[in-house]
Amino acid sequence: MKAVGIIAEYNPFHNGHKYQIEQARQATNADTVIVIMSGNWVQRGQPAILDKWTRAQMALENGADMVIELPVQCAVQPADIFARHAVNILASFKCEWLSFGSEHPDINFNELASVDLKATKIDQDYTKSYAELIRDALTNTTGEDVSAPNDVLALNYAIANLKNNHQMKLVPIKRNGANHHDRDLNINGAIASASSIRAAILDNSKELVQYLPNSTDIEALKNHVNWEDFWPLLKYKIETSSIDELNHIYQMTEGLEYRLKKYIYEAHSFDEFLRLVKSKRYTYARLQRLFVYTLLNWRKNDNLSQEYVRVLGFNKSGRSYLNDIKKQVELPVITKINKELSESELNFDVVSGRIYENINNIPQDAGKIPLIY
Amino acid sequence: MKAVGIIAEYNPFHNGHKYQIEQARQATNADTVIVIMSGNWVQRGQPAILDKWTRAQMALENGADMVIELPVQCAVQPADIFARHAVNILASFKCEWLSFGSEHPDINFNELASVDLKATKIDQDYTKSYAELIRDALTNTTGEDVSAPNDVLALNYAIANLKNNHQMKLVPIKRNGANHHDRDLNINGAIASASSIRAAILDNSKELVQYLPNSTDIEALKNHVNWEDFWPLLKYKIETSSIDELNHIYQMTEGLEYRLKKYIYEAHSFDEFLRLVKSKRYTYARLQRLFVYTLLNWRKNDNLSQEYVRVLGFNKSGRSYLNDIKKQVELPVITKINKELSESELNFDVVSGRIYENINNIPQDAGKIPLIY
Repeated sequence: MKAVGIIAEYNPFHNGHKYQIEQARQATNADTVIVIMSGNWVQRGQPAILDKWTRAQMALENGADMVIELPVQCAVQPADIFARHAVNILASFKCEWLSFGSEHPDINFNELASVDLKATKIDQDYTKSYAELIRDALTNTTGEDVSAPNDVLALNYAIANLKNNHQMKLVPIKRNGANHHDRDLNINGAIASASSIRAAILDNSKELVQYLPNSTDIEALKNHVNWEDFWPLLKYKIETSSIDELNHIYQMTEGLEYRLKKYIYEAHSFDEFLRLVKSKRYTYARLQRLFVYTLLNWRKNDNLSQEYVRVLGFNKSGRSYLNDIKKQVELPVITKINKELSESELNFDVVSGRIYENINNIPQDAGKIPLIY
Repeated sequence: MKAVGIIAEYNPFHNGHKYQIEQARQATNADTVIVIMSGNWVQRGQPAILDKWTRAQMALENGADMVIELPVQCAVQPADIFARHAVNILASFKCEWLSFGSEHPDINFNELASVDLKATKIDQDYTKSYAELIRDALTNTTGEDVSAPNDVLALNYAIANLKNNHQMKLVPIKRNGANHHDRDLNINGAIASASSIRAAILDNSKELVQYLPNSTDIEALKNHVNWEDFWPLLKYKIETSSIDELNHIYQMTEGLEYRLKKYIYEAHSFDEFLRLVKSKRYTYARLQRLFVYTLLNWRKNDNLSQEYVRVLGFNKSGRSYLNDIKKQVELPVITKINKELSESELNFDVVSGRIYENINNIPQDAGKIPLIY
């Protein structure tokens, strides 16, 4: 059996994602579509608006044959690290193709990825992310402007695939409909951006139904979660931690711990805190990720690079594929969280899931088995 | 001017406390009654049911001339340490007398305090507090049974007074009315125990008015706080702390960190957690204090013995006394929390106050000045 892999967050799953799965299957003629998805915390440093089980279910009901979870320590990372882990896991899972949405699917991502970036001068500009620096270097070197959010991610996938000698064939799919960050729901027929759908969910807007697949459990949308729900915990954590303890948090650099301490007593909400701490030096995503690390107590000396295949759900085709390749997968394949696991390698996922379930009251890990379709 | 000192928690202030202040003034003919009171966290390891300002106000309206705060690191401690700090601060504040409630005021506490306990064998029985061990040794040595809660505290005051060469004269006042732990409100005329009054406040019982002084602001009773309010924070703290981090918490001994980790996922409330962790080896008070230390992140290498005089409020007589003796007081006298202070010696009070005010939404320290009557 041959599989196409898709890297996703599905925050939340919408018609554009359904379309992408269909297109990936069609373009590759793969037997199976494997989705690797962020769990309860997403790449830009936010809690997922709906928990990972609800989102995995939406994907399985709309074309995915299997959903695996990108471990939280791999997901809440800058784009290059996020891409590296996701690509590694899909490659280890023997995917033949890697498919992704792209604003400009005609870009030759493989060629761009093979540009010797060491030969280009990457400016140490602190206001830019690593991905942005790569993009700038590429524009300088090749004249190609890779700046749309999905193109940037695509390039990171291509680099990870090449750098780690994976052999997955890249399958860019033209993004259809709204742009990534569009805030307006009514842009383009039945496809709106995930950002605008999140805003509509938080507003309990009735319009949003048309942008979600028919199978969507509208009741489940009520269990939405956002950063403000965790604000009392983040506030408590920063208030009771010494400067030294904060300094030990992963990615707490350049005296950011003083900035956090300074503004924590002034802010009345997460949003206000984020805006107080923000400066030109840091992007919102960088700071939000730092707040996730602080909330979840990740420390500089923690091992945050563990990879494994955590299966969230599958249908018959997904299960056949799993049985087919199981023995060839070098990473641990995890289908059930027992007591032992919850205390070992899955610790970051389990703890982050518990903090999340304290808010939405839906068990996330202990004793959970994959969804079966 | 001559002052009589009273050590109290006023959790909350009731008619029995009013009576005690009157009796102490009458018995000593002092010019001024100085109360040293626990702040927002009390000796047995609980948040005070009403904040320190509300309780100080009740005391000032009912006979106290000045209320000073027993620093939180001195208050949330076993009886002997609590007593030592409170006695030290009152002695440093030049009180001539030390008055306290007692079930048996005829006991000669000074004589008992001077028994050479080193000559007696104190069994290392882990199920007993230090105070209980002293009591047992005393019963063995003198035949006197000091077991009623206020008698035990009184004995601790007497020992602290003697051991540190303070010269305060002891003035036991016969406790009038309900016993310390009585749960039934309707026991003895207009005096009920603090425990039963707390239960009545949590129940919004209308009966309780008769047990509180007439001046009581009944609206203020609605801002009550209990351990369950802090349960989400305690749960979060234990869930996100490693075993090693928990082991660094003050008084985390004998592998208690494993017990906390084991039961945190089973408990659905603070009360359930407390009962799960409880064993014969530990009293409820010992565990509750440990949970305060955990919540407030006090660590084994923290300096928890800082003493100072934090003034919460006074009337004319209290102010005159303060002006009279200010220059003779060796401890720092603090009337206002400025930015600098909040980052230095008062840190434990300030942080504990912030965690408390996150629940009751009433500012506790920053910029506060003493109540003036």
